[in-house]
Amino acid sequence: MKQRAWFACLVLTVVPAGFQPWLGDQPVGGVSRFVSGDRLVFPDEYRQWVWLSSGLGMSYEASAADKDPIFTNVFADPASYRAFEKTGHWPDGTTLVLEEREAVSHGSINRAGHYQGALRGIVVETREPSRSHGKWMFYNFGLSTKPVDAIPEWAQCYSCHAKNGAVDNTFVQFYPTLLEIARQKHTVR
Amino acid sequence: MKQRAWFACLVLTVVPAGFQPWLGDQPVGGVSRFVSGDRLVFPDEYRQWVWLSSGLGMSYEASAADKDPIFTNVFADPASYRAFEKTGHWPDGTTLVLEEREAVSHGSINRAGHYQGALRGIVVETREPSRSHGKWMFYNFGLSTKPVDAIPEWAQCYSCHAKNGAVDNTFVQFYPTLLEIARQKHTVR
Repeated sequence: MKQRAWFACLVLTVVPAGFQPWLGDQPVGGVSRFVSGDRLVFPDEYRQWVWLSSGLGMSYEASAADKDPIFTNVFADPASYRAFEKTGHWPDGTTLVLEEREAVSHGSINRAGHYQGALRGIVVETREPSRSHGKWMFYNFGLSTKPVDAIPEWAQCYSCHAKNGAVDNTFVQFYPTLLEIARQKHTVR
Repeated sequence: MKQRAWFACLVLTVVPAGFQPWLGDQPVGGVSRFVSGDRLVFPDEYRQWVWLSSGLGMSYEASAADKDPIFTNVFADPASYRAFEKTGHWPDGTTLVLEEREAVSHGSINRAGHYQGALRGIVVETREPSRSHGKWMFYNFGLSTKPVDAIPEWAQCYSCHAKNGAVDNTFVQFYPTLLEIARQKHTVR
């Protein structure tokens, strides 16, 4: 009996969070996986997900020129990307990854501008699945791949995304191909 | 009889170029498709391929600061990417896409640095499949999606890539995750 309870607990905690057969035809994103309740598992395969766009040295505050700008690369899990293509919205279970990399100027034959170097950190944004319909949460992995708790909800990322995201809680205004889709679907707010 | 000849011709010209069952276990890339012999068909789905990296304002010549830098985004077809992961080399049939986009600085809440805007052009590099084993060719689509002939082989891109590509004919030195793989596989030259 003990063994069965343990097994049920394991299934409940590691079952893919996007697996929600009761939603029927509603698009379901999702590869987010959680352990021990609320800790998010690192999305190992994100580099093979759908890349949305990259920026360099982006800042939401006017400031002096950044002498050490970083590249910010954004990826979406493929199922949620396909749902966005169809509807212009992100489904429950959506997982977006923000990868930060250093910007390198001189190397090989390159003499000007910047290309990408070492990893600086990973932040993940999820649209929570069954537990809290439609709620967006942030997770900061840094340079680790161990499961992490969500960033506390008083952090600035929550209020800034909620206020300024072009579609739902997300900065689609900075992803040119998604912005085109959202305009066609009239989902830009 | 005429009809059968016409059908055979159609099959020969539109069959995916990476389809080479006689190669057995050798990794085969590929989604490149050709029409009328040598003209390459635009790879419609490239934005859902595996993104390799992006640069901003990269230049191989020392020059004054670029006032209108462009983003350069590189994608690989998924089958060839998986082959590269296994071997550190690109298989015949590999298709790489270089997407150029304008860099935007002020928009929405962004105040500094650059994010990506309108499409500026598409260049494709292929490792030719059956017709010419291992040969790399370049195709410039610009802003069109119509089939195009290869760029003439006297163009600078051919000699520069042949001389400076870190792996085969490709600038893996600017794609951080592939460079790591190539180092592990000892395929960096």
